[in-house]
Amino acid sequence: MSQDRIRRPSLLSKVVSADEAASLIKDGMTVGMSGFTRAGEAKAVPLALAARNASNPVKITLMTGASLGNNIDKLLTEAGVLARRLPFQADPTLRNAINHGDVMFIDQHLSETSEFLRSRQMKPVDIALVEAAAITEDGGIVPTTSVGNSATYVTLAEKVIVEVNSSHSAAIEGMHDIYIPGKRPHRQPYPVMAADSRIGTPYIPCDPDRIAAIVFTDKFDSAATNTAPDPETISIAGHLTDFLANEVKQGRLSNSLNPLQAGIGNIANSVLYGLVHSPFEEMTMYSEVLQDSTIALLDSGKLLFASGCSMTLTQPVGDAVYANLDKYKNRLVLRPQEISNHPEIIRRLGIIAINTALECDIYGNVNSTHVNGTHMMNGIGGSGDFARNAYMSIFVAKSTAKDGAISTVVPMVTHCDHTEHDVDILVTEHGLADLRALAPRERPKIVIEKCVDPAYRDQAFDYYNRALARGGQTPHVLEEAFSWHAHRAKTGSMKLS
Amino acid sequence: MSQDRIRRPSLLSKVVSADEAASLIKDGMTVGMSGFTRAGEAKAVPLALAARNASNPVKITLMTGASLGNNIDKLLTEAGVLARRLPFQADPTLRNAINHGDVMFIDQHLSETSEFLRSRQMKPVDIALVEAAAITEDGGIVPTTSVGNSATYVTLAEKVIVEVNSSHSAAIEGMHDIYIPGKRPHRQPYPVMAADSRIGTPYIPCDPDRIAAIVFTDKFDSAATNTAPDPETISIAGHLTDFLANEVKQGRLSNSLNPLQAGIGNIANSVLYGLVHSPFEEMTMYSEVLQDSTIALLDSGKLLFASGCSMTLTQPVGDAVYANLDKYKNRLVLRPQEISNHPEIIRRLGIIAINTALECDIYGNVNSTHVNGTHMMNGIGGSGDFARNAYMSIFVAKSTAKDGAISTVVPMVTHCDHTEHDVDILVTEHGLADLRALAPRERPKIVIEKCVDPAYRDQAFDYYNRALARGGQTPHVLEEAFSWHAHRAKTGSMKLS
Repeated sequence: MSQDRIRRPSLLSKVVSADEAASLIKDGMTVGMSGFTRAGEAKAVPLALAARNASNPVKITLMTGASLGNNIDKLLTEAGVLARRLPFQADPTLRNAINHGDVMFIDQHLSETSEFLRSRQMKPVDIALVEAAAITEDGGIVPTTSVGNSATYVTLAEKVIVEVNSSHSAAIEGMHDIYIPGKRPHRQPYPVMAADSRIGTPYIPCDPDRIAAIVFTDKFDSAATNTAPDPETISIAGHLTDFLANEVKQGRLSNSLNPLQAGIGNIANSVLYGLVHSPFEEMTMYSEVLQDSTIALLDSGKLLFASGCSMTLTQPVGDAVYANLDKYKNRLVLRPQEISNHPEIIRRLGIIAINTALECDIYGNVNSTHVNGTHMMNGIGGSGDFARNAYMSIFVAKSTAKDGAISTVVPMVTHCDHTEHDVDILVTEHGLADLRALAPRERPKIVIEKCVDPAYRDQAFDYYNRALARGGQTPHVLEEAFSWHAHRAKTGSMKLS
Repeated sequence: MSQDRIRRPSLLSKVVSADEAASLIKDGMTVGMSGFTRAGEAKAVPLALAARNASNPVKITLMTGASLGNNIDKLLTEAGVLARRLPFQADPTLRNAINHGDVMFIDQHLSETSEFLRSRQMKPVDIALVEAAAITEDGGIVPTTSVGNSATYVTLAEKVIVEVNSSHSAAIEGMHDIYIPGKRPHRQPYPVMAADSRIGTPYIPCDPDRIAAIVFTDKFDSAATNTAPDPETISIAGHLTDFLANEVKQGRLSNSLNPLQAGIGNIANSVLYGLVHSPFEEMTMYSEVLQDSTIALLDSGKLLFASGCSMTLTQPVGDAVYANLDKYKNRLVLRPQEISNHPEIIRRLGIIAINTALECDIYGNVNSTHVNGTHMMNGIGGSGDFARNAYMSIFVAKSTAKDGAISTVVPMVTHCDHTEHDVDILVTEHGLADLRALAPRERPKIVIEKCVDPAYRDQAFDYYNRALARGGQTPHVLEEAFSWHAHRAKTGSMKLS
């Protein structure tokens, strides 16, 4: 196996155990690791690090692409390894530690981590720890199911540790497109002109001398845990498909739409599934995470090509795709997240961005991150990269949570990640609010009638009408802006009567 | 005069009075007008429109570049002409009408209006009404002191009205660089590689047949009304210069810094003045509005080149510049605002963005627009275009307003235009808070100690400490988040004791 996967013979001498590699990670270091939405994270070394921390404790800053699989964030948190974590996470144990103040979490736009590192506006990366499907003759590192920030970490780190993971099909080589931007002031445009543009190399270039250790592993990615579409998400998908069909009818979009981005999670995944039976043809995706729905759209013939920075599939879909990679390889590309999420390319291509709101308000401001304005859920991820720069920014949510005790549409968001300037369309299972080119005062009626659950409509109108009496561009009763949240804290429900 | 300024003889037959031109504007129409920060707006026709509205009332949607001079927004508001207004304004009478709900104000990122129009996601422009210094042999329209959205309006409108204004020096021709992006999916990168890149034509191309009327005028631009630097703004400038000097010392920036953007207004203007006596050399600006300070920096030799989309100068500085345009013309360029503010170019060049906060909070969220979270001041302008995509996003503010009765740093902003993800540096006269790569919990201590006025520090710490006891990534006492504002409403001051 070794020689297939490590094609530069001199590097075979660098192969060590996971424990030995983990011993390179010292207290206070910053580790830049592969891994994005449970795909392609380094597995053996972080688990070795967690295991040895009882006897030989270190605290590190861990940067990744995004969230990790194999319970790595959980185990590192429990072992007390994490001092700082960025730019995204989605693990309940880590989330808890963050909200207790035990781990400092820097919640960043996913396109920006690379920029901050490259300009040395953050502490430098000591060790890059990346999973690879292979190492080429020149030392080039072939990523696996995600690219994330790995190219930046490998380029900038003092030392590089590579986990060569034989659980990934060797046929994945060729699916990646790695491009490292030039230094300012000589930086050139990113020549991505369409979702299927290839602008770089199929591996991360790396001087072999910088590879400090190589670890073999055959641990699998954790499968995605998406649930099947349910009546609400099917309804959301239906509203959105109807809306987009009307945009085509009005001549504002062609029948292949514009390139699509969809956020991670069940609702966005379900919305894309809805497009399998839509009238649209020859679509493309320029997105962040490719989920089961992307594969369903490719299989249906509706989608010509998908670009992302990671691929996170459920077990059955993953099994089918990775056993038939040659069938998919010329219709998929995985890029660094600074390129999948780059403002330049998002604006140029005119992306239709579909992201999930945790909470939104009657004026169209969106909270993507903070429960009750204080407690972190996962992080902003790429939603800000896409929503700000998209052709059209759509946010989707179920209208209620906790069996109706929470209305996801409230008078004022308790934390704002996306301002009303960046929210064109809101969709819940009840309907779709088209907020384009509307003043704030024109928005509440539409949002309440189309998107708010009927059980909350009266109290939403009551708030808005009393707010209106006080005037302003964006009327509010400031001392009641969070009264629904206060009511829930007291009674268990946001329903005021 | 006519033949110098209108170099296509056949167009002389289109010259009419302002009243005749104004009669082309019918009830319900959308008018796209030149004008950006009191510079280069059409003057004669809008004033004629306001004057005739008593006898022949119309209601229109007025789109501009940004704010207007010559009291045009005031007079149009008083005459009842405005139904809808976008994407920015700064007039007290109009502001009042907006906050009363009499005029619907769509507060947009200034780079986005052109995109929305081009993709027909907003109602189309019926009439483009633009000021020109000249019309070329081919019908090309030479803008005056601003470009704003004029190129888009002229390109997309049904009819074009040109005001040829002889108060502007004919020598201004050649200072503009007009570039119209291609249609998606064939749009190419914007080839701006540095502040001084020229990528287009020095006039707005226009089929002469589309010019419906030409009006002669000699009305002047309204001069800028900047006040001189005061002790607080000088102090802000000092903190920022020291900080940037340290960035140079640490090797993160060269001694010419990165291209600078500075928002409109006294504080940002004063910060730039501060750079005249800084150690930096060979700086460039890639900004929106060029103010007096830009000229001072050019004159000092510190600034090599400035790119903007409008030039708004006080009377004495304007007199000196426009009488000596040949001296400045090869060191200044005026572009369409979608290009001066374009995410692609801002990220590529690595802009240092300096914008003014109306209010910010202990976590670094910024309110740029809404007094008390409800009443519109001016609009978000280009601050979002720059802050999101910049190399470094700096917000400046005086720490108090209304003689200390208001702390501009509060527990939670009452309206959020810029989230903590987009705010790297906060500066008040008391100091500078460097928030880069800090988790929310690490921010309040620094913000309070560096930026909050001493009279408010204890109550800020008191709030934060009680919030901290409740936990979370971003601790808050939700029911007290706006208590400082409530206290001011009741007592006239935010000081709790």
